[in-house]
Amino acid sequence: MNELRIEGARRWGDPAPTALAIRGGRIVALGADADAQPASATIDARGQLVLPGLVDGHAHLDKTLWGERWHPHQAGPTIAERIDNERRVLRGLKLSAARQSARLLRHMVARGTTHVRTHVDVGPEMRLAHLHDLMHTRAACAGAVDMQIVAFPQGGVVRQPGTLDLLDAAVREGTDAIGGIDPSALDGDAAGQLDGIFAIASRRDCELDLHLHERGEQGARSIGMICDRTQALGLNGRVAIGHAFCLGELPPAALDPLLERLAMLDIAVMTHAPGGYMPFPPVRRLAEAGVHLFTGSDGVRDTWTPMNTGDLLERAYLVAYNSGFRDDAGLELALGMATWGGARVMRAPDYGLDVGCCADLVLVEAECAAEAVAAHPPRRLVLKRGRIVARDGVALLPAAA
Amino acid sequence: MNELRIEGARRWGDPAPTALAIRGGRIVALGADADAQPASATIDARGQLVLPGLVDGHAHLDKTLWGERWHPHQAGPTIAERIDNERRVLRGLKLSAARQSARLLRHMVARGTTHVRTHVDVGPEMRLAHLHDLMHTRAACAGAVDMQIVAFPQGGVVRQPGTLDLLDAAVREGTDAIGGIDPSALDGDAAGQLDGIFAIASRRDCELDLHLHERGEQGARSIGMICDRTQALGLNGRVAIGHAFCLGELPPAALDPLLERLAMLDIAVMTHAPGGYMPFPPVRRLAEAGVHLFTGSDGVRDTWTPMNTGDLLERAYLVAYNSGFRDDAGLELALGMATWGGARVMRAPDYGLDVGCCADLVLVEAECAAEAVAAHPPRRLVLKRGRIVARDGVALLPAAA
Repeated sequence: MNELRIEGARRWGDPAPTALAIRGGRIVALGADADAQPASATIDARGQLVLPGLVDGHAHLDKTLWGERWHPHQAGPTIAERIDNERRVLRGLKLSAARQSARLLRHMVARGTTHVRTHVDVGPEMRLAHLHDLMHTRAACAGAVDMQIVAFPQGGVVRQPGTLDLLDAAVREGTDAIGGIDPSALDGDAAGQLDGIFAIASRRDCELDLHLHERGEQGARSIGMICDRTQALGLNGRVAIGHAFCLGELPPAALDPLLERLAMLDIAVMTHAPGGYMPFPPVRRLAEAGVHLFTGSDGVRDTWTPMNTGDLLERAYLVAYNSGFRDDAGLELALGMATWGGARVMRAPDYGLDVGCCADLVLVEAECAAEAVAAHPPRRLVLKRGRIVARDGVALLPAAA
Repeated sequence: MNELRIEGARRWGDPAPTALAIRGGRIVALGADADAQPASATIDARGQLVLPGLVDGHAHLDKTLWGERWHPHQAGPTIAERIDNERRVLRGLKLSAARQSARLLRHMVARGTTHVRTHVDVGPEMRLAHLHDLMHTRAACAGAVDMQIVAFPQGGVVRQPGTLDLLDAAVREGTDAIGGIDPSALDGDAAGQLDGIFAIASRRDCELDLHLHERGEQGARSIGMICDRTQALGLNGRVAIGHAFCLGELPPAALDPLLERLAMLDIAVMTHAPGGYMPFPPVRRLAEAGVHLFTGSDGVRDTWTPMNTGDLLERAYLVAYNSGFRDDAGLELALGMATWGGARVMRAPDYGLDVGCCADLVLVEAECAAEAVAAHPPRRLVLKRGRIVARDGVALLPAAA
């Protein structure tokens, strides 16, 4: 029996240092109760803060160039140019999505990620090949990270006939969700794309997680159409929208009613705080309106950008920094997006820091959660179901094949 | 004689691994010549990139809360509120600026900073006390970091009578530069403040480094007035402007002639890429116009914000991220601001990676400079004049008193 006691650490939200007893992959006791538990190993965690495992709610593990030679960015600025460039580069490199995703996951685990929802390209070119590769990685890395897979029509749905059938097949093969992308700007037929993917979600009882880069009023119209279909099909709590740049551009008169609908329908919003003068959802305003928020790495070291690092605590920092947060409540809101927010979207069972929760834990040198975000210090220890999977930034996993 | 050979590392800009021989605090040979030099110690730096020491061109070492208990941010959003809050908090905490600056410097050195220009509050309340404290720290840390001190009238000049005399006294006591701040928005008398500080700079032959938070056209007018006085007094190459948010807000018709003047008068511009929806200078546009750029930490863990970390390589990342840079040229531009850009403003002698340069060096695991920015990995080794001052993120200096 793997019995572990972590001593002298602070749990997020509790200013007093305490002990955590871990057995059978779970937190079984806290404080004096924990001190009384048997332990085959103890960890002196004085000065450390215990966070629940970081949740990367929006990754693209199948397309990373992680571990390859440095690839100078060369794509044009539009979404269409970036899609075309990506296909061209990846065709040339002939990388294995199984190997690449395992390489990047190893890095993410070293930085404290215990849960990841990854979008996986599905379309006429690769069909379900990336999906199969990612299922392989999911099984291979199951001891270190819980993975959800979203079948993602990167190239569009309407403009790429046959994609809906592939998405449907992906669900039958076991993806957790299907995606969508810019139904007006990329597909030129918002109703066509949305009706198609919502029909699959409704028929197959799977979740939806859509990319929405559309700007301003065009984006707002698409969000309205997503709300309409969520409501009509009773898919409350099963739909998420990623990026949603437009929410950072709308005047209050247009934003407020949209946020009210998103909150009512429990449609979660993901932002990774894109920088580069891009608008992004006003995080505090969304939280006040009751909209559920989460964050993720987006593409790490890929043909879209070399700038994302796969470090979710740094991501929480970027969300806070780019939102202009300086107060503890803002910093904790950002960290909440990288933890509980994503866990809720992924329906991670028994997630948290209480007795009975899975012992998916990250230890960092910090006095409180706000400091952990501001300093985003190295991860001293990462536990997955009570097992140490990374120490001082190094993953204790077999190397990727 | 301290002789050191670094083997197998890449120098920024040179794709082939090479050797660097270091003697007497300088780089004395490269490549095969370096292999032939005697060395009392060698460092295996395969896989590492060698950067010149990081230059923090805009810090506020005297006001940091570094090393103290976490201080939840509580200041209001305006500059005036933040100044008032700061004075109130610092009066309560009674910290020593000598101790605080040494604490933060130690952290900065661990992250590769070898040069720092710090603004030090001067005004009726603290008079020259912070300046004296920083002079003490400058002497105590001289083996690890080169420091310039800017006497900074945080509370204004015109609205705080006696401040000009203090600035003048500061120069006589050995500060390298004097500052200014928002001559219109804070002092309400742009000509009054600027004429006063330019007169000192001209009379005492010292440099000027002004804070300018003023927005839009008000800021543009102040920059114009700074240019006028720089030109009239022949202070070309001796004036810098920090923040200059307004440069991120002006339409091209207003921006372009201003950039032409800044370039012609060799007035350097510092931005730390503030985030939080703040405009900031369009870095690539300024570089194209020939304006010299540099960057810095700004206040680290102080009453203004807890969000700056004192890590200049991460700062280069933030400059690139928030500028929307993805290409190697953009990433190298940002890193240039954190190295050569600041070194030029500080007139650091013999700065760089060539034979004859001071061996102020930072080693990081990266293939090229663009990757160093994108990943901003831990600093494996930091050298100051050929002496190892930090290893794996830990400064090898006496602890701050």
